[in-house]
Amino acid sequence: MSTLPAVLEKYRIEIDAELKSVLAERKSPLYDMMRYHLGWIDENGYPQQGLSGKALRPTLCLLACEAVGGEYQQALPAAAAIELVHNYSLIHDDIQDDDRERRHRPTVWSIWGKPQAINAGTAMRLLANISLLRLEGCGVPLEKQWRIQHLLDETSLRLIEGQYLDISYENRFDITVSDYLKMVEGKTASLIACAMEVGALLGTDDPELIESFRSIGKNLGFAFQIRDDLLGIWGNKEETGKPLASDIRHRKKTLPIVYALEKARDGLKEELLNIYGNGALDDGAVAAVLRALEANGARAMSQEMTQKFCREAGQAVSRLALAPSGKHDLQSLVSFVMERTS
Amino acid sequence: MSTLPAVLEKYRIEIDAELKSVLAERKSPLYDMMRYHLGWIDENGYPQQGLSGKALRPTLCLLACEAVGGEYQQALPAAAAIELVHNYSLIHDDIQDDDRERRHRPTVWSIWGKPQAINAGTAMRLLANISLLRLEGCGVPLEKQWRIQHLLDETSLRLIEGQYLDISYENRFDITVSDYLKMVEGKTASLIACAMEVGALLGTDDPELIESFRSIGKNLGFAFQIRDDLLGIWGNKEETGKPLASDIRHRKKTLPIVYALEKARDGLKEELLNIYGNGALDDGAVAAVLRALEANGARAMSQEMTQKFCREAGQAVSRLALAPSGKHDLQSLVSFVMERTS
Repeated sequence: MSTLPAVLEKYRIEIDAELKSVLAERKSPLYDMMRYHLGWIDENGYPQQGLSGKALRPTLCLLACEAVGGEYQQALPAAAAIELVHNYSLIHDDIQDDDRERRHRPTVWSIWGKPQAINAGTAMRLLANISLLRLEGCGVPLEKQWRIQHLLDETSLRLIEGQYLDISYENRFDITVSDYLKMVEGKTASLIACAMEVGALLGTDDPELIESFRSIGKNLGFAFQIRDDLLGIWGNKEETGKPLASDIRHRKKTLPIVYALEKARDGLKEELLNIYGNGALDDGAVAAVLRALEANGARAMSQEMTQKFCREAGQAVSRLALAPSGKHDLQSLVSFVMERTS
Repeated sequence: MSTLPAVLEKYRIEIDAELKSVLAERKSPLYDMMRYHLGWIDENGYPQQGLSGKALRPTLCLLACEAVGGEYQQALPAAAAIELVHNYSLIHDDIQDDDRERRHRPTVWSIWGKPQAINAGTAMRLLANISLLRLEGCGVPLEKQWRIQHLLDETSLRLIEGQYLDISYENRFDITVSDYLKMVEGKTASLIACAMEVGALLGTDDPELIESFRSIGKNLGFAFQIRDDLLGIWGNKEETGKPLASDIRHRKKTLPIVYALEKARDGLKEELLNIYGNGALDDGAVAAVLRALEANGARAMSQEMTQKFCREAGQAVSRLALAPSGKHDLQSLVSFVMERTS
């Protein structure tokens, strides 16, 4: 079972503290749904610990800021904002996908109902903006605050556009790898790119350097999602918290499936369409899909694609003139994205 | 049948043009759901006309700006932003309430499904921020833009907190008039107050004048909601687009009901609880509720409360040193809120 790399712990306490202080003065029970989702309390309001996510995006934001010579403390409100955007999207995603479990716990909607979970998600997205207001207290000039606000709003629109595509693909069987990548660019890559761009922006005024970080984030984002797709089919139940071949059972159009449907020929394609297009997927059908994915190289191709995106990100990091410790931390996250098992 | 006052037409074309240009470059079909909701196209994408809302909030924003001596053109991006916030909340509201019809047309979710309608609503809320970016092109200083952005974000949180309360009241029978007012303050009054505050803010730097407009907006907001509650029970089907006693059939906790449940004594209270707490509401039950609301003065009390809030708003407008035409326009909107039948 893989452990998380040390760099994901580097800013952990400060990210949590920043998030907690954004929510601190909010009294309505609306915010308790957020505190629950973030793993701070249980559904009855009692404190819980250690149940939040990996904090990959805020960590990338702070690492980018430090790597270009900035002080990561200045970027904490932006890192918290990005984590709130990510988490709002999970709350809505769980409603949209009818998912009852997330991070080994019941989802917000499965406890409070979908109408209230819609409220929790949208309000969390708006709290991300409130978090950005704190940049002023960190000495960030108003022009930069405004630019970051704009970036976060546009990125959130990309994210929703990606989510729109994802849902619209559910009942389609003609999705190509190129359609898939367009969806992932919005749904996953845009926010990870934004995290690194914002971090760099807060540490430097060099537009080329900022753009490099954006591009590294984008590659990492694609790799992250494709790795997620692999884990959604071949991941270990104990590590992912999802049942074996979960994405197949949910008929999700993840990369291995999209690739197999696009590339499979004759009998294999018909068999796949038959299985995916019809009623319940029993264990036999799932096993047949798994065999097909191995047979036509969908698994190997997805692994290669994760590696390709990670390689591009890693090479870009190597080329930049950054402090050695910054490079090292970034590379360890690139490796994590490539090899993670949870 | 009442017609809308002329003042609601005053900026109509420019508000629509501003909204359309905010959406103009957005290509994803995600934005077609918004165009549909705003009444510009039908569900197949063909142009439609004249089906949007009253545009009360953006009109109040622009009137406030002009009344304090500003140029309303400068406030158009803010007026559009406020209309987008209002409309996003309607899209989510219809999902949450399971309402299939709005403004005599099928709701967004009833055409595209709830998952996509959640996307449309949240994205529309973010487009409101994008609209605010256009204030820069109108010569509004960055500090003011930032202040308005903050105000709109906090107001949206108040709105969602109010919506949270509204939903949480659904299964409760101990709601008091004071609980009700707290809910309405968030759900309705906060955005109308914000519209007038932002308009004034864009026309003047006088903090007292700005605060006066906020307070006028808040009173108008309470009046607007209570009038809405009256129309939801005693409104004319052709004018409101809702069936007779619609809110009773939906068991909504609107003011007349809340008042009746709080104040009714003995037999009447038990009867109401009995009707409201049990299964389907047939025509006989609805008629019994209507009788009870008349008998214990709930209807009269609600009418008086609308008038009280409008009187306070109207008197505040009278007291302010504003251009006579500005006063006149504002007073005609106060009268409209008090007497409207649709």
